[in-house]
Amino acid sequence: MVDILHRVGVKSSSLDDVYGALTTVEGLSAWWTDATRGDTEVDGVLQFRFRQGGFDMVVRELEPAKHVLWEVVDGPAEWVGTTVSFDLKQEDDYTIILFKHEGWREPVEFMHHCSTKWATFLLSLKSLVETGKGAPAPDDLEIDNWN
Amino acid sequence: MVDILHRVGVKSSSLDDVYGALTTVEGLSAWWTDATRGDTEVDGVLQFRFRQGGFDMVVRELEPAKHVLWEVVDGPAEWVGTTVSFDLKQEDDYTIILFKHEGWREPVEFMHHCSTKWATFLLSLKSLVETGKGAPAPDDLEIDNWN
Repeated sequence: MVDILHRVGVKSSSLDDVYGALTTVEGLSAWWTDATRGDTEVDGVLQFRFRQGGFDMVVRELEPAKHVLWEVVDGPAEWVGTTVSFDLKQEDDYTIILFKHEGWREPVEFMHHCSTKWATFLLSLKSLVETGKGAPAPDDLEIDNWN
Repeated sequence: MVDILHRVGVKSSSLDDVYGALTTVEGLSAWWTDATRGDTEVDGVLQFRFRQGGFDMVVRELEPAKHVLWEVVDGPAEWVGTTVSFDLKQEDDYTIILFKHEGWREPVEFMHHCSTKWATFLLSLKSLVETGKGAPAPDDLEIDNWN
């Protein structure tokens, strides 16, 4: 099992601001993909769509201003059964996001791609909370020929 | 052992262009840190310096237009003994870079940070080759309170 890990700090923000961007359809639409819909409560299913397909996630764990965990239940075979989590804490003037996409079975080339792509989406989340403007799909940063 | 993986595609470039940016002091200075010096041949030592410290790497493997592997011999304790590699291939109109920073002993918080930071430096490399301008330290993108 292999994992994708990231750390991003959102300057001059509150834990609640970042938590809101992770737990509302409006927030998620503004940094990951504008084609986001579904139920953001525990056991709810969130649907994220992109030009090339998408992911369905069940919300498994929520701790306000602290922790979010989703389980992938539909999407590319490599993603199904993996989990995506965000842990938040305050440090200096930053809200720190510790991100994990855990449970990949093999370090396939698609995982390399997703690792870089997650970094750009987390920076989109940082930008959203800091400036009010993110870069969600379909206006996301192109990193390679898979987009 | 845990690894950092990334995939970036450099548009309308040649394998030689990207390989050059990985194997010359001038190239490395223009996307990773402007404080780069040393010997870029096999068994040579490269020194990369940043505001907060730096890394010494021995060049272990070079295959022109294809593969570069460094071993970290000095720097933060978590980095010493790890390896950093770049594998190149052409796909569509892109030079694809498969990046690996392998051999981390634990998925510590610093590894989360380095994973995101590597993504931004690889995008700096992409920008350098595509446009002639990268974002090397000290003009690199700040991702969190550790920079």
